[in-house]
Amino acid sequence: MGPTGPNGEGGGADGTVPTNTTVNLPPLTLRDVPRLTAAAPVVPNPISRHPYFHPSATFYISPGDVSLRHAFFDLASATPAPLVAYRRAGPRQELSIDPARARAALVTCGGLCPGLNTVLRELVVGLQELYGVRDVFGVAAGYRGFYGADADHIRLDLATVDDWHKKGGTVLKTTRGGFDLNKIVDGIVAREYTQVYVIGGDGTMRGAVAIFKEFKRRGLNISITGIPKTVDNDIGIIDRSFGFQTAVEIAQQAIDAARVEAVSAVNGIGLVKLMGRSTGHIALHATLSSRDVDCCLVPELDFYLEDKGGLFEFLYERIKQKGHAVVVVAEGAGQELIPRTDDQKRERDESGNIVFLDVGPWLKSELGKWWKREHPGELFTVKYIDPTYMIRAVPANATDNLYCTLLAHSAIHGIMAGYTGFVPGPINGNYCYIPLEDVAAAKNPVDVNDHKWAWVRSVTNQPDFLNNPK
Amino acid sequence: MGPTGPNGEGGGADGTVPTNTTVNLPPLTLRDVPRLTAAAPVVPNPISRHPYFHPSATFYISPGDVSLRHAFFDLASATPAPLVAYRRAGPRQELSIDPARARAALVTCGGLCPGLNTVLRELVVGLQELYGVRDVFGVAAGYRGFYGADADHIRLDLATVDDWHKKGGTVLKTTRGGFDLNKIVDGIVAREYTQVYVIGGDGTMRGAVAIFKEFKRRGLNISITGIPKTVDNDIGIIDRSFGFQTAVEIAQQAIDAARVEAVSAVNGIGLVKLMGRSTGHIALHATLSSRDVDCCLVPELDFYLEDKGGLFEFLYERIKQKGHAVVVVAEGAGQELIPRTDDQKRERDESGNIVFLDVGPWLKSELGKWWKREHPGELFTVKYIDPTYMIRAVPANATDNLYCTLLAHSAIHGIMAGYTGFVPGPINGNYCYIPLEDVAAAKNPVDVNDHKWAWVRSVTNQPDFLNNPK
Amino acid sequence: MGPTGPNGEGGGADGTVPTNTTVNLPPLTLRDVPRLTAAAPVVPNPISRHPYFHPSATFYISPGDVSLRHAFFDLASATPAPLVAYRRAGPRQELSIDPARARAALVTCGGLCPGLNTVLRELVVGLQELYGVRDVFGVAAGYRGFYGADADHIRLDLATVDDWHKKGGTVLKTTRGGFDLNKIVDGIVAREYTQVYVIGGDGTMRGAVAIFKEFKRRGLNISITGIPKTVDNDIGIIDRSFGFQTAVEIAQQAIDAARVEAVSAVNGIGLVKLMGRSTGHIALHATLSSRDVDCCLVPELDFYLEDKGGLFEFLYERIKQKGHAVVVVAEGAGQELIPRTDDQKRERDESGNIVFLDVGPWLKSELGKWWKREHPGELFTVKYIDPTYMIRAVPANATDNLYCTLLAHSAIHGIMAGYTGFVPGPINGNYCYIPLEDVAAAKNPVDVNDHKWAWVRSVTNQPDFLNNPK
Amino acid sequence: MGPTGPNGEGGGADGTVPTNTTVNLPPLTLRDVPRLTAAAPVVPNPISRHPYFHPSATFYISPGDVSLRHAFFDLASATPAPLVAYRRAGPRQELSIDPARARAALVTCGGLCPGLNTVLRELVVGLQELYGVRDVFGVAAGYRGFYGADADHIRLDLATVDDWHKKGGTVLKTTRGGFDLNKIVDGIVAREYTQVYVIGGDGTMRGAVAIFKEFKRRGLNISITGIPKTVDNDIGIIDRSFGFQTAVEIAQQAIDAARVEAVSAVNGIGLVKLMGRSTGHIALHATLSSRDVDCCLVPELDFYLEDKGGLFEFLYERIKQKGHAVVVVAEGAGQELIPRTDDQKRERDESGNIVFLDVGPWLKSELGKWWKREHPGELFTVKYIDPTYMIRAVPANATDNLYCTLLAHSAIHGIMAGYTGFVPGPINGNYCYIPLEDVAAAKNPVDVNDHKWAWVRSVTNQPDFLNNPK
Repeated sequence: MGPTGPNGEGGGADGTVPTNTTVNLPPLTLRDVPRLTAAAPVVPNPISRHPYFHPSATFYISPGDVSLRHAFFDLASATPAPLVAYRRAGPRQELSIDPARARAALVTCGGLCPGLNTVLRELVVGLQELYGVRDVFGVAAGYRGFYGADADHIRLDLATVDDWHKKGGTVLKTTRGGFDLNKIVDGIVAREYTQVYVIGGDGTMRGAVAIFKEFKRRGLNISITGIPKTVDNDIGIIDRSFGFQTAVEIAQQAIDAARVEAVSAVNGIGLVKLMGRSTGHIALHATLSSRDVDCCLVPELDFYLEDKGGLFEFLYERIKQKGHAVVVVAEGAGQELIPRTDDQKRERDESGNIVFLDVGPWLKSELGKWWKREHPGELFTVKYIDPTYMIRAVPANATDNLYCTLLAHSAIHGIMAGYTGFVPGPINGNYCYIPLEDVAAAKNPVDVNDHKWAWVRSVTNQPDFLNNPK
Repeated sequence: MGPTGPNGEGGGADGTVPTNTTVNLPPLTLRDVPRLTAAAPVVPNPISRHPYFHPSATFYISPGDVSLRHAFFDLASATPAPLVAYRRAGPRQELSIDPARARAALVTCGGLCPGLNTVLRELVVGLQELYGVRDVFGVAAGYRGFYGADADHIRLDLATVDDWHKKGGTVLKTTRGGFDLNKIVDGIVAREYTQVYVIGGDGTMRGAVAIFKEFKRRGLNISITGIPKTVDNDIGIIDRSFGFQTAVEIAQQAIDAARVEAVSAVNGIGLVKLMGRSTGHIALHATLSSRDVDCCLVPELDFYLEDKGGLFEFLYERIKQKGHAVVVVAEGAGQELIPRTDDQKRERDESGNIVFLDVGPWLKSELGKWWKREHPGELFTVKYIDPTYMIRAVPANATDNLYCTLLAHSAIHGIMAGYTGFVPGPINGNYCYIPLEDVAAAKNPVDVNDHKWAWVRSVTNQPDFLNNPK
Repeated sequence: MGPTGPNGEGGGADGTVPTNTTVNLPPLTLRDVPRLTAAAPVVPNPISRHPYFHPSATFYISPGDVSLRHAFFDLASATPAPLVAYRRAGPRQELSIDPARARAALVTCGGLCPGLNTVLRELVVGLQELYGVRDVFGVAAGYRGFYGADADHIRLDLATVDDWHKKGGTVLKTTRGGFDLNKIVDGIVAREYTQVYVIGGDGTMRGAVAIFKEFKRRGLNISITGIPKTVDNDIGIIDRSFGFQTAVEIAQQAIDAARVEAVSAVNGIGLVKLMGRSTGHIALHATLSSRDVDCCLVPELDFYLEDKGGLFEFLYERIKQKGHAVVVVAEGAGQELIPRTDDQKRERDESGNIVFLDVGPWLKSELGKWWKREHPGELFTVKYIDPTYMIRAVPANATDNLYCTLLAHSAIHGIMAGYTGFVPGPINGNYCYIPLEDVAAAKNPVDVNDHKWAWVRSVTNQPDFLNNPK
Repeated sequence: MGPTGPNGEGGGADGTVPTNTTVNLPPLTLRDVPRLTAAAPVVPNPISRHPYFHPSATFYISPGDVSLRHAFFDLASATPAPLVAYRRAGPRQELSIDPARARAALVTCGGLCPGLNTVLRELVVGLQELYGVRDVFGVAAGYRGFYGADADHIRLDLATVDDWHKKGGTVLKTTRGGFDLNKIVDGIVAREYTQVYVIGGDGTMRGAVAIFKEFKRRGLNISITGIPKTVDNDIGIIDRSFGFQTAVEIAQQAIDAARVEAVSAVNGIGLVKLMGRSTGHIALHATLSSRDVDCCLVPELDFYLEDKGGLFEFLYERIKQKGHAVVVVAEGAGQELIPRTDDQKRERDESGNIVFLDVGPWLKSELGKWWKREHPGELFTVKYIDPTYMIRAVPANATDNLYCTLLAHSAIHGIMAGYTGFVPGPINGNYCYIPLEDVAAAKNPVDVNDHKWAWVRSVTNQPDFLNNPK
């Protein structure tokens, strides 16, 4: 029904959903995480014996504490999606792991990401200061460190990690690849690690799933947790990945420089390439934060250069109107458009995928050729900025430092409660435990049909390139 | 039941909640927002006619789209809390307001907060660029501008606001007080404003409620929305207030300076006062982000100085152990402890409350007296930093700029859909519309029994001062 | 003679120069700057009539005030270099130009440089606020603006330029080339400009010399001053060019990112290319400031890759020793080493010079090939950063803002005193006037035999590549 | 004579000094620094045997290399000032100290200053890496560390100091006072230090002079050098002190915040107190760099509040004109104006001087009272910012890091050449050695009659308060 009463009393706004009345929701399913075979309460949480503070009744997470995966619904939908929930993360009153016998290994894999060192620091702080775990080791240089030399296993303590949260990169060093399941598990067993904290991207998470399964296959009571590290924010289920906010923050500097270069030239274009192979989150968020970007190109949405409705037409209009334009392009955008040499067509990367081409220099070159062709004799400038390593090597900002802290502590609390094969992470703002397999399988593309992405387009007035005449 | 199967197959982890089974939730109640008396679809949303992009089927918010206030539950609870939901914010397919006849007034009230100018800019951009509203006015210097001189009503357009999101403060100027209901509503009527965007703190929101009611009483078809501005994050229901993340970020500089001063002295204490009269959110988050703070004092938790378990004892132990200590104190902490002169006991502020005393210099002085008394002849240094104005005057960071952008656009979409008397804001990450009255009444204290706050204590090992012997 | 007395009384330390005795210096020659034909004191300086302050006797520069070009000597030298001095910059008590009749044109040419907008702002402020010159115009987009459309001549006043010193780039826009002497001078005459402020690099300065001579040839009483803009600091005689310190400051971010990438990898090299075609000042100063650079390559010093004493050998030793290395390479370094295609051998730039090749990607590629060849199977990473546009587009820092302010005011004071054909700039810390021709002809290479450059090598322990076996 | 020839050929510009002719300068006196009694070349400089670079003929400083104290003159002056020169700093070909037998002590005294840790780091790096000195010790917590416990003498090496140049404060800790000449010298002798590097302010420099004299009195062959540390830049003779540029840079944040607060209020004043007890250099430079300050108050110039030409009148005019005003006040300004209690009149600090009163809160309060009295009922706001500890605790910026590096290396080269009782520092841009006694005695006030200071007034249009009617 429509609005009937005077101002503010109209029930049934929008005509379909009764105001201030109740609706029944579909039933909820808990997606639980695995536990160690032997998991059973063995010791009270040592936090209860802290000299300075006294955990209140609500300090510990109760067994029934869960959080919804999606907190929003269309009440008018005839076919509501089933509800899914996850266990909430946090300290448990009873531990299933005796801290006195725990021996933890931490490892970082893959590319750099702001916050890596904070996660490492907080794992050490939480394990030692809260739980009294004495034996904490950093495994150097990624997965291959597990089967590397003795020097690759570095004993960590509070003094060592004291200022790591102020440092970019990873003190443990990181490498790609080197995943050899049996060698890794053998190495873990040989050094008697009882809990393993793996920090890495989606490949690393898939490796962690394999390790988790191999532990099970061998009947080992060793816990493993994966902390997703992807500056691109391309991990699903969790709200966002650590380092992402910092990356968006630093990307502003590159966009601002591009804007200044464009504004200070006659018919100037500032072009910035931002990280994001499969997803355009950094490009999208940096664009929405900056408000100085005329067009943001992401992998999730095809675009085209020539012809009506294409990028060139759009940019020309902007230049005529404002004298300049700023373009942000995600690493993975436009891969279909870039011509490949025969070699490049054949070439495959380590994972067997077709090799990635660099969209930035290609687009810069295409823009130059277009202008020369269409507007000969007219001044034109494209300044291209690739800030990738200047972004990912910075220390985490305050927001991400807090996030990394809570993430690391969530991981520890989960491990100590006997959980394994899980990923800690915030869902709708609440820290939860999610099965490693779910996270390893989930993708997190920018949903171009979603409101938020729709908004970026409405907010920036940029084209959606839906009318490709070809 | 306990874990029964092999590793990872244990159903019923924690013994009470069946794994991967379904549970029925309590029914959900929608807290709806008021609509204009005359609200009815009058025109299609002009975004649909955009030259460059073509809203997909899911671009517009459907009438049934709602979002839960709380996304987490204790499934084991015998008395589950009732579920509450709010309407999701965003563009509607049909408008109840004809943009061609709209005349908007924007006003900022109260103290400064990072992001004020971004909100103003985006209100202008959204109204003009997306909806084609021609008449947008900034009302100068807070509520009193409504009944002020002609010069207080400044016509705003895209060119004027172009770089406002890079500026701290508020270009419109702001004042406290000056709320005169009849004069304000008369002024609004006299200038034929049809929609009013009020940006301010809790006092301002209460004023907006009064204006909303007066519109209703007079039968005026004028919309009003309140955008909560509180750097302290002391507004309830919404996830957080704009400017808060920026404030936490900049506060790191002060904490870091305090740490350096403390570390570089013999028996040094660095003391930082951060904003937060009724809530300690900035202090808490800045502490968790920094990881260099030994003790964080907030209004929500009493503390004491002398005696066993008191602040002095704690700090002395830290100094003996590390050579220095860093203390963060929220503005509103310890008000009960500071001695008041008879004048101060009588004095009342504009709202009739007892006047606020400055906890920073008092605590600095008490620390000095304590050491001189207890450890005469030993070197000691307290360096005190009050970064308040250096924090609140900065431009919004990227995170807050994005937030302010979506907030402003949410407000506009709601107003154009015919809603009034509402606050836009994110709840569990989804932008919603909340009745102004609910927000004006809600508080947002740090819940010292909540996990997060409990964690800060566990993370920092700081005392909870629960054993006050007095 | 050696030290003879007790501690501290030894006369003739170092054995050659008597202590605390006097020495006669060679005579000094004043290199004067040109004056307008008609230059004669016409009006008292209006600063004398300022309402708030009252210039003291020493406020104005006296006719005899000069400053030495070089403030150091080798007293033991048998053939001392002749002494050269320049006139000191600053306000004169009597003006040779009547501000009421002055009409000023400001123009920016060439690439961006931090501080451009500050210089523009301060020229406007100084001309209008101190001297009361009403007619001040910005000429858009470089030299070609002089003979461009009416829209290219923008009237500037205090309100317009108010916040320009906070902005990167140049509000006036800038272009390269477009120098057409007769059209430019015709344009200046047609618009009745009486004073011209040209801000640009060495090509621009040579253009200014030509304009100055053309003014003389035509017998025009129009003044011209050149303000050298070169972020590379490759202008001679003056202490340094504006924007240079800011560039060195921002370059730290790139070097730090390179260091983090290198440190976090196994056998990692961080490679940063910094601006500097003919000189390595930015690279040198950024290296000395950072203290994290293992090798700094500049145009002034040849290097080689292979063989004993070459770059590869040096880097390998560093990697073995520290696990990583950081290399800074100036744009103009190694041009001789990069292989050229036949096209590149033929190609000439606008000035007829052989085209510049990009040393960064070449060096990155050579490093990769070297390691693969010499250390197959061993992990290796090179991360390459080119921060050029992120450096030159930032606003000036405080040091450069102050410098730009004094530079602009120096220029105005000189013009008002009747000087022309000059460059203002600090020499040994004192602002002076230098003939444009001298500056246009001077180069400012890093003197690799000088102490300072020698020190960089001693400080960084880096090779000098003097033993090239080839 | 006046200009006679055509444009640019006019000899004798300004009428008194012949152009491009020669002038004879007065004779020059070398102010030499003391040398150790036993100083004589004992070993060649080990830098000559460096594996990677090969010092050229000009690398080493020659015995005759000197630099002028003042590089400018008034050629028209009838009574030219005598010329003074100092020895240039830098490496010598022959050392008078055998590095193999050297044992160095480093100490920091007094308040914090950006760059302290860089100086310490570079002293260690230079001594060990360039000269091969094995025994380098940090003496903890100022002068009292010399006669303190064993723990106060910390062995330093390259690994320890690796990242110190990125840290604010001083790792060695610092204290004020504790100067006990005999205990200090006894401590130095007892630990067999052969060279002492003292970093501190003017009090510390006077202490270093006393130690130098006591070494002489006792006939000890121990060298001492003083590195002046004063963020206020109140040390004479040298161009500027380290940390000063960083302080001016960071002060911009406070001034900008004050401006934003002032601009965003109705009749707003932003008031910033900056460091500078006896000199206003930071206030002056920060004002000139910011260009947003309406009035800068320094200790060197009296001001008054009421009456014609006073501060209040000036500020009222600015507020009427612009709506707001920004005031910077140096710590030491206005001490004569602040009323003192009887206690404050009697109280003396450690050095016997009358105690310092805090000008910031006093001025804030006076401004408030003035407005209430003179403009009752009109809105008014003063926001006061004291950024002192947020400024002095930051790490050095690039400019200061380079400066500290060259300063530390200069000190080492001098000590190794056998000099003692000296201060290294730049004079007109060239690093020199200056007798400690000269520096301890020199002051460096802002010369309010000098051109530069005159310019600040002309540039900011601020009053000189010369017309005090009282």
